[in-house]
Amino acid sequence: MVNKRYDIAIVGSGPAGLSAALNAKIRKKDFIIFGNKDLSSKVVKAPKVNNYLGLYNIDGLGLKESFQNHIDSMGIEITHERINSIYAMGDYYVLMVNEKMYEAKSIILATGIEYTKPIKGEEEFLGRGVGYCATCDAPLYHDKIVTVIGYNKESEEETNFLSEVASKIYYVPMYNGEYELNENIEIIKGKPVEIVGDELVTKLILTTKEITTDGVFVLKDSISPAQLVPGLQIEDDHIKVDRLMKTNLPGCFAAGDCIGKPYQYIKAAGEGNIASLSCASYLDSIKK
Amino acid sequence: MVNKRYDIAIVGSGPAGLSAALNAKIRKKDFIIFGNKDLSSKVVKAPKVNNYLGLYNIDGLGLKESFQNHIDSMGIEITHERINSIYAMGDYYVLMVNEKMYEAKSIILATGIEYTKPIKGEEEFLGRGVGYCATCDAPLYHDKIVTVIGYNKESEEETNFLSEVASKIYYVPMYNGEYELNENIEIIKGKPVEIVGDELVTKLILTTKEITTDGVFVLKDSISPAQLVPGLQIEDDHIKVDRLMKTNLPGCFAAGDCIGKPYQYIKAAGEGNIASLSCASYLDSIKK
Ligand SMILES: Cc1cc2nc3c(=O)[nH]c(=O)nc-3n(C[C@H](O)[C@H](O)[C@H](O)COP(=O)(O)OP(=O)(O)OC[C@H]3O[C@@H](n4cnc5c(N)ncnc54)[C@H](O)[C@@H]3O)c2cc1C
Ligand SMILES: Cc1cc2nc3c(=O)[nH]c(=O)nc-3n(C[C@H](O)[C@H](O)[C@H](O)COP(=O)(O)OP(=O)(O)OC[C@H]3O[C@@H](n4cnc5c(N)ncnc54)[C@H](O)[C@@H]3O)c2cc1C
Repeated sequence: MVNKRYDIAIVGSGPAGLSAALNAKIRKKDFIIFGNKDLSSKVVKAPKVNNYLGLYNIDGLGLKESFQNHIDSMGIEITHERINSIYAMGDYYVLMVNEKMYEAKSIILATGIEYTKPIKGEEEFLGRGVGYCATCDAPLYHDKIVTVIGYNKESEEETNFLSEVASKIYYVPMYNGEYELNENIEIIKGKPVEIVGDELVTKLILTTKEITTDGVFVLKDSISPAQLVPGLQIEDDHIKVDRLMKTNLPGCFAAGDCIGKPYQYIKAAGEGNIASLSCASYLDSIKK
Repeated sequence: MVNKRYDIAIVGSGPAGLSAALNAKIRKKDFIIFGNKDLSSKVVKAPKVNNYLGLYNIDGLGLKESFQNHIDSMGIEITHERINSIYAMGDYYVLMVNEKMYEAKSIILATGIEYTKPIKGEEEFLGRGVGYCATCDAPLYHDKIVTVIGYNKESEEETNFLSEVASKIYYVPMYNGEYELNENIEIIKGKPVEIVGDELVTKLILTTKEITTDGVFVLKDSISPAQLVPGLQIEDDHIKVDRLMKTNLPGCFAAGDCIGKPYQYIKAAGEGNIASLSCASYLDSIKK
């Protein structure tokens, strides 16, 4: 099967990604935008917003509605999928959603930023028992003990998938709610404190107990950009871009919280606009 | 008379200046914003705007109304004055409006950009017969011949002021309309082609004729930032800033079209937001 190759793939549906999408549409580019139904939890959760010029005294839901109405009116549809990893292939990019693959000539990263600090040991054991994509790495844990630290409802689905492969699964939910998990998954209460091991992970220490485990999946709302796109240059924990929102990788642009402070809606939207126009120029330049 | 010293003076009432003002207000800074009744001609004149996220299919007047409503609701008032020059005084800035003076601990430049190309000879003879502020330089032209190239209605007032000092005044209007000029001012039709001279300006060549003159004032909608703020670092015709919108002068920030392309509303607004927060941090840092 030959994959369709888009002009642009936009990753993220917060103000940065949406603003990039508007301009890609106006520039008549063939693009796809990945994100979620709520657009961005950082949009819908805001109690009151006064500094988005033109929309006074609006709450997060109102802001979301204005954004949604804008993209709907322009016929922009968001693909509700989470990109796990992106590979630079020379003159195009491959974006992975578990086993599915998308291709695009250029990409705009607008993934926002994850405020949660890494757990002690998380970065040290990354790739040696610590992973961010349960469905991708499941085959490694055939008949092994796996622990999933889940930050959101969607983590449950990935955990259920894992439970068909691993011999034992612990699920550590970092949120409240009803958990829809397969019968053979054990729910552990408590906060993770440290991931320990030698060559590979051997156990997870929680505030409540210690568990022996071969692997730990940390399923956060977003993974770090360096994890998402191998080879991407990072500076002070953010994607390094120039004033035109270019990263170190040709055809890869970035905008919004993921490129740096201050974390603000209209800053993100303004940068999405710039990234999109820069991306359009890039596409024109490679056509020649 | 001791001048009041503001925390921040914002120069310009386009999206960059307004967005800076919102954030200065939220941060409870004591600020003043200079601009005009229409906010920005580049806002009101837009036929249709589709890329300001959250406001779909709006025209320039609609955009202006949304902006105006936002600042009105937050009790922000624009001072309708045009700043002629700004001087860095060490730990504060002086902003001149003809003979009037304002003081501020920090400034945010959001002046937009003037698309009109300089006239041949304009830059060469700047300060040697070419000027941008008729009222400031009037004393130099006592009993001399002066030509004013006026790009807008407001230029007429400055020209009338000059006519009380100079021996002869030519007025070259670059716009259509009724001109309200003193009797002794001669209106010249034609487009300026070149300003010529030796040490100092001697004449102005127009498409229609040549006139002998000791001085030429070019009264555009905006003057170049380097002219406005002596010492300000310029790069590729724009004010040089870093990612936090800092210029080379401590306490001087800039945002919008005046710092570079692309020329876009939401980019300008996003940068105004950043500039304002950076400015607030600067003010906090000098307090210590
Ligand atoms: C409670 C709260 C209140 C706030 N109030 C204000 C305020 O009043 N004013 C203000 O200016 N700012 C405010 N902010 C900050 C503002 O929310 C952020 O700066 C802004 O949302 C950043 O926009 P963004 O587009 O960069 O990222 P985000 O809005 O975080 O959007 C990123 C999107 O990308 C998606 N994504 C990430 N990774 C992937 C992937 N791999 N595949 C697919 N999708 C992915 C995410 O799920 C998310 O939907 C507030 C934030 C919070 C949390
Ligand atoms: C016809 C037209 C259509 C456009 N359409 C679009 C569009 O669809 N989408 C889009 O994103 N962009 C569009 N733009 C571009 C957009 O208008 C600009 O990028 C944007 O207005 C820049 O904002 P700004 O705040 O930097 O400057 P401006 O909007 O230019 O505002 C600067 C303000 O500062 C004032 N000022 C300057 N010097 C001084 C001084 N010394 N003292 C006091 N006040 C001063 C000016 O009078 C002006 O009011 C359009 C522009 C035009 C002309």
